[in-house]
Amino acid sequence: MKQNDALGERRIIEIIQSHLDLMPKMPVPFGDDVSAYDIGNGKLAVLKTDMLVGKTDVPRGMSLWQAARKAVVMNVSDFAAKGVKPLVLLVSLGLPAGLSEKDVEAIGDGLNAGAREYGAYVIGGDTGEASDLTISISLFGIIEKGRLQLRSGAKPRDFVAATGLFGKSSAGLKILLGDVRAPEAIRKALVESVLIPRARLKDGLALCQSKAVTAAIDSSDGLAWCLHEIGRASNVGFLIDKLPVAREVKKFAEINDLDIGELVLYGGEEYELVVTVKPKLWRKADEAIRKVGGKLTLIGKTTSRLQVLLEIDGRQSVIEPRGYEHFR
Amino acid sequence: MKQNDALGERRIIEIIQSHLDLMPKMPVPFGDDVSAYDIGNGKLAVLKTDMLVGKTDVPRGMSLWQAARKAVVMNVSDFAAKGVKPLVLLVSLGLPAGLSEKDVEAIGDGLNAGAREYGAYVIGGDTGEASDLTISISLFGIIEKGRLQLRSGAKPRDFVAATGLFGKSSAGLKILLGDVRAPEAIRKALVESVLIPRARLKDGLALCQSKAVTAAIDSSDGLAWCLHEIGRASNVGFLIDKLPVAREVKKFAEINDLDIGELVLYGGEEYELVVTVKPKLWRKADEAIRKVGGKLTLIGKTTSRLQVLLEIDGRQSVIEPRGYEHFR
Repeated sequence: MKQNDALGERRIIEIIQSHLDLMPKMPVPFGDDVSAYDIGNGKLAVLKTDMLVGKTDVPRGMSLWQAARKAVVMNVSDFAAKGVKPLVLLVSLGLPAGLSEKDVEAIGDGLNAGAREYGAYVIGGDTGEASDLTISISLFGIIEKGRLQLRSGAKPRDFVAATGLFGKSSAGLKILLGDVRAPEAIRKALVESVLIPRARLKDGLALCQSKAVTAAIDSSDGLAWCLHEIGRASNVGFLIDKLPVAREVKKFAEINDLDIGELVLYGGEEYELVVTVKPKLWRKADEAIRKVGGKLTLIGKTTSRLQVLLEIDGRQSVIEPRGYEHFR
Repeated sequence: MKQNDALGERRIIEIIQSHLDLMPKMPVPFGDDVSAYDIGNGKLAVLKTDMLVGKTDVPRGMSLWQAARKAVVMNVSDFAAKGVKPLVLLVSLGLPAGLSEKDVEAIGDGLNAGAREYGAYVIGGDTGEASDLTISISLFGIIEKGRLQLRSGAKPRDFVAATGLFGKSSAGLKILLGDVRAPEAIRKALVESVLIPRARLKDGLALCQSKAVTAAIDSSDGLAWCLHEIGRASNVGFLIDKLPVAREVKKFAEINDLDIGELVLYGGEEYELVVTVKPKLWRKADEAIRKVGGKLTLIGKTTSRLQVLLEIDGRQSVIEPRGYEHFR
């Protein structure tokens, strides 16, 4: 019998979904970043839940305040990708024995900081004992029907873009785990990207307003993986001709003799948005993002051929469907 | 510095709440069974999250199917108390390594069974690795403004009633832990109350329709505790003159020389509803419950004196503010 070490997170999700009765007329299919329910008057209630677990999501060096804030941010990032403003959230907290009052205060402050940073409020929740720190967040928002930026709307020859550069969190995580070198000048930015991740909410809302986006996803499972996800959902392939490498990551890779492509494509826990954009509306999308202080980086195009390829200096290689996955 | 073993679950919740920015015009205060958000058109979105953890919530003898189902039921029970129909739910799943495909299927089936039993659908969620089985459920529903059965509306001299009898889950848990005797005739009912708990959703919805209820709570923290909770929120006391003892519990207590009051008042994980009812509308409430196949058991009255007292055969005793609490 297969064990879940071998099953992998995605197979587990598949198994569970196949055992669920499907709600008629689901506004968002299983497997997208958020779920939704039609509340009438042309509106959808948007819901998201994701759980932070100490063992897998809280690296050495991350404080309780940072962990609690991150639990909120990783949920907000999914709302950002879909173009939904988070309104309120609930927290389900599993705490190991032995925490001090100060520890609990830090968790409360971190939850509040994560929520308020994005305009939301914590309005409830529950707590219980657990053997490991467990913070499950449930996010709630409302959006007009038809406005959600799903994974499934990309068409061949759309532009592909990201809201930022990649590789920082992979590099930062390696620094926290202590087996690499990084000069002070780049160390801080890399480590901060892990400890204090930021969700691209303003960017996601601006893109949604622009109506230029055909598909969107948050990149927390890694750039490679999220291209494959959009590809699967939209039935398109990708030709990526520019790797969105952060400056610090280039330097970090050189110093430690690491592969830049590996850091940029197959990391994870990076909360950028990856979007496909109607070519004719590219300028509109680009302007919308600039207006809120962001930047869209064009990295390639979608294709009708169902492959995810990287082409740099005329040489093509395959971008593999792998990334950060629990249980592997 | 105080450790959370000493802090206790409720103090932890207090600390966290005191570190949160309060949303203006919260429709439901912190600490009630559910949270809510005003979505306009005279309606509230109702939200609830609660987490089942293997170590504290899954006793020996409970299957994965039963655990997954229970995770849903304990959330539905809070909706039931407030008079809210659950529509959809999300699942955040933390799975220990080493589960088989069959195990995962059992979890999927259990989640689905719990949802469908109460007319709801599982529409999304996420999964990750955890050191212990962790199932966090987020429930969503809608109710008209002003219709929520909060904890805070009881007035002195209201009738106090429960939707069922108590003590079965305390007794059942003792049986599962194996340090007591129980003849086959009562064993099954007691153990089943732990393994296959039922939420009183039909009862809660019927009571809400009747408009006879002034305050309500689900009894999962124990009968004693929930009386104190309504007392605190409504600023009333209680005079309980009838212990709602299940027949099997009376027998079980006799055989094992256990205190019936202890089993009935200070157990927990019992998913009955405890409600206060306007005396003039008692018949209406009673009829509403009967129509859906339930039964209201009158157990006493609220008082203006802020004590929670038990009076049996003319002898008064204090019902203490204790019950099931994690971390103690």
